[in-house]
Amino acid sequence: MPIALLTDFGTKDYFVGAMKGSILTIDPQACIIDITHEIEPRNVAAAAFILRSCFRDFPAGTIFVCVVDPGVGSVRRPIATQAHDRVFIAPDNGLLSLVIVDDPAMRAFKISNPIYLGKHVSNTFHGRDIFAPAAAYVSMGVPVNDLGPSIADIVSLDFVRPVTNADGSVTGEIIHVDRFGNLVTNLELSHLGEYFVLEIDGHRISELKTAYADSTSNEPFLIEGSAGFVEISCRNASAANRLGVVVGMRIIIVSESHKV
Amino acid sequence: MPIALLTDFGTKDYFVGAMKGSILTIDPQACIIDITHEIEPRNVAAAAFILRSCFRDFPAGTIFVCVVDPGVGSVRRPIATQAHDRVFIAPDNGLLSLVIVDDPAMRAFKISNPIYLGKHVSNTFHGRDIFAPAAAYVSMGVPVNDLGPSIADIVSLDFVRPVTNADGSVTGEIIHVDRFGNLVTNLELSHLGEYFVLEIDGHRISELKTAYADSTSNEPFLIEGSAGFVEISCRNASAANRLGVVVGMRIIIVSESHKV
Amino acid sequence: MPIALLTDFGTKDYFVGAMKGSILTIDPQACIIDITHEIEPRNVAAAAFILRSCFRDFPAGTIFVCVVDPGVGSVRRPIATQAHDRVFIAPDNGLLSLVIVDDPAMRAFKISNPIYLGKHVSNTFHGRDIFAPAAAYVSMGVPVNDLGPSIADIVSLDFVRPVTNADGSVTGEIIHVDRFGNLVTNLELSHLGEYFVLEIDGHRISELKTAYADSTSNEPFLIEGSAGFVEISCRNASAANRLGVVVGMRIIIVSESHKV
Repeated sequence: MPIALLTDFGTKDYFVGAMKGSILTIDPQACIIDITHEIEPRNVAAAAFILRSCFRDFPAGTIFVCVVDPGVGSVRRPIATQAHDRVFIAPDNGLLSLVIVDDPAMRAFKISNPIYLGKHVSNTFHGRDIFAPAAAYVSMGVPVNDLGPSIADIVSLDFVRPVTNADGSVTGEIIHVDRFGNLVTNLELSHLGEYFVLEIDGHRISELKTAYADSTSNEPFLIEGSAGFVEISCRNASAANRLGVVVGMRIIIVSESHKV
Repeated sequence: MPIALLTDFGTKDYFVGAMKGSILTIDPQACIIDITHEIEPRNVAAAAFILRSCFRDFPAGTIFVCVVDPGVGSVRRPIATQAHDRVFIAPDNGLLSLVIVDDPAMRAFKISNPIYLGKHVSNTFHGRDIFAPAAAYVSMGVPVNDLGPSIADIVSLDFVRPVTNADGSVTGEIIHVDRFGNLVTNLELSHLGEYFVLEIDGHRISELKTAYADSTSNEPFLIEGSAGFVEISCRNASAANRLGVVVGMRIIIVSESHKV
Repeated sequence: MPIALLTDFGTKDYFVGAMKGSILTIDPQACIIDITHEIEPRNVAAAAFILRSCFRDFPAGTIFVCVVDPGVGSVRRPIATQAHDRVFIAPDNGLLSLVIVDDPAMRAFKISNPIYLGKHVSNTFHGRDIFAPAAAYVSMGVPVNDLGPSIADIVSLDFVRPVTNADGSVTGEIIHVDRFGNLVTNLELSHLGEYFVLEIDGHRISELKTAYADSTSNEPFLIEGSAGFVEISCRNASAANRLGVVVGMRIIIVSESHKV
């Protein structure tokens, strides 16, 4: 089964190489897959979003090793979680919030069995010394519940969910800007009425397209993105640059059902 | 056989991970290789150049999945092409122009057989939903011509070829700037006479070296690059920065055969 | 056994793809691992540091292909080295200095046997034409000493080691800045006395932490990093930005044993 890596380690240092070496030392046959190492440093919520947006594309049994870990070496626990027929190994800091949320059969374990730790455990690099070895042992057939005791109280981040206001409008926000400058919101198509206007930072958008290429102008439009959220896009250009918008900005959806 | 990926998806999002997961879900044994995901967004011609410059280095049978796809979800067709004993899967937008051009036995098929599409096909991410599954099925042994009907009219981009002018000079242009700042031209060594001067943006270059380290000055020189084209280079420095040159700039080669 | 790649080729060109294709053409079963391709162009010393910091994490038998090669095509030799139960393939320009230094059983060979070169050897891309093929042949079982004659005089760079001054102070320097802005020094913990002050560029630091999260202020502190060196860090921030420090800057450790 593949071992898929998701970190904020970047690709210019020895960190990713050390993790891969650590895995291969235990499981020489491991199939190691990079999801990304370009999570913004220490941005646990961003990692949670990226993981949520692709884990279902991987086969059942995949072992995800997710390391965005500003608390490395402190009391935060290293955990291994079984959910959605896959295994997720990460620091217990909320990184797994969006994958565990909708699997009632989820089980979590604190990685602590000394048999399955690296030979030397530093205080500064648990990716290499704890998370990678745990993944490799699971890949070799070690049951997840052998990694350490079951735990029930794993950390979950509060992600901002859209709010329906008293006047029927919906308040959401920008949760991600992708490589193309598409602005991913926390809204789903169902939040848009049949007639709507989305307002963000003084801009008003009321076009909804079903493909990027359907737009014939340079005006921003909405589209259902591949992660299942409404995105703000511009034809052949970065909506983020065009609108000057960044992650966290507020959106309001005003229903225009009275417009007709 | 390896499945080699070439996209403009960058490496900070979930896009590449989703494609890899999609492949592994169908072919758990797939050997997935990254060529690059750093093609400039929507730059189909740049992807065509990169693919042309390395596909022959891969073994016969390699399956290339190439996704630079501004037309995703529109009428442009997803295609699978057999050429040069390899398989190329891409949107039909010219990305494959430089690999199909010199194989008269080339055959192309429109990917449309619903058996070999992903479970859900979005309008915004055919890399995950169409191209990756097609590659994985071919990797599993599905014949390319089972993916859909044969097509004869695939899109080909016009790439700028050098022009020999009435006065014997040759006009070319810069087609790529590499990581080191080397300026790749569309000229081959045969376009340079025995005595020549290359003119670009007011600069004149007449030195031809056979290795980067042969230059002993800081002046720009010409060299045959590893893609088979003449490049403009500077010793231990970026020629692009030194000369202030970008992709698309015009070059003129003036023969100096009368110079002696 | 894995073939691990470490280069300054970046990831936007065809260079890395061409190397991987070249390996797979010879050994279709090769397990290719990327350490990094983001070494600063032509910075041999930086590559030596990255390699030293992770090669021991890889299993015995791993074949490392390390290409930072400003001298490509000149008289510098391509070499294959056996050390620490692993194989290191690189240009003979000092890149391997830090892995060969402490293995008295190290043996080096000049890669020159024409059987094990690529079909065509360019003057500009030995990563594809010499180093990748050599690695693939070794991966296929070719003994390293079949690649060419034994050589005894391989190039070694002088790395700056800490100096103990007449007054008992120690002078070191910054050798690497990582993705997080941690400043890696060439000092080990033993260079710090029980009481010490580290001085750099007008800043004075005397806190030593054992985990990043142990710091409760925004002040810079010292910590033993995962490469075994003392690092200067800031809590949840880049020490490099905070202090305005770059690679090569001088550090002085003043013992404060008289302070009490």
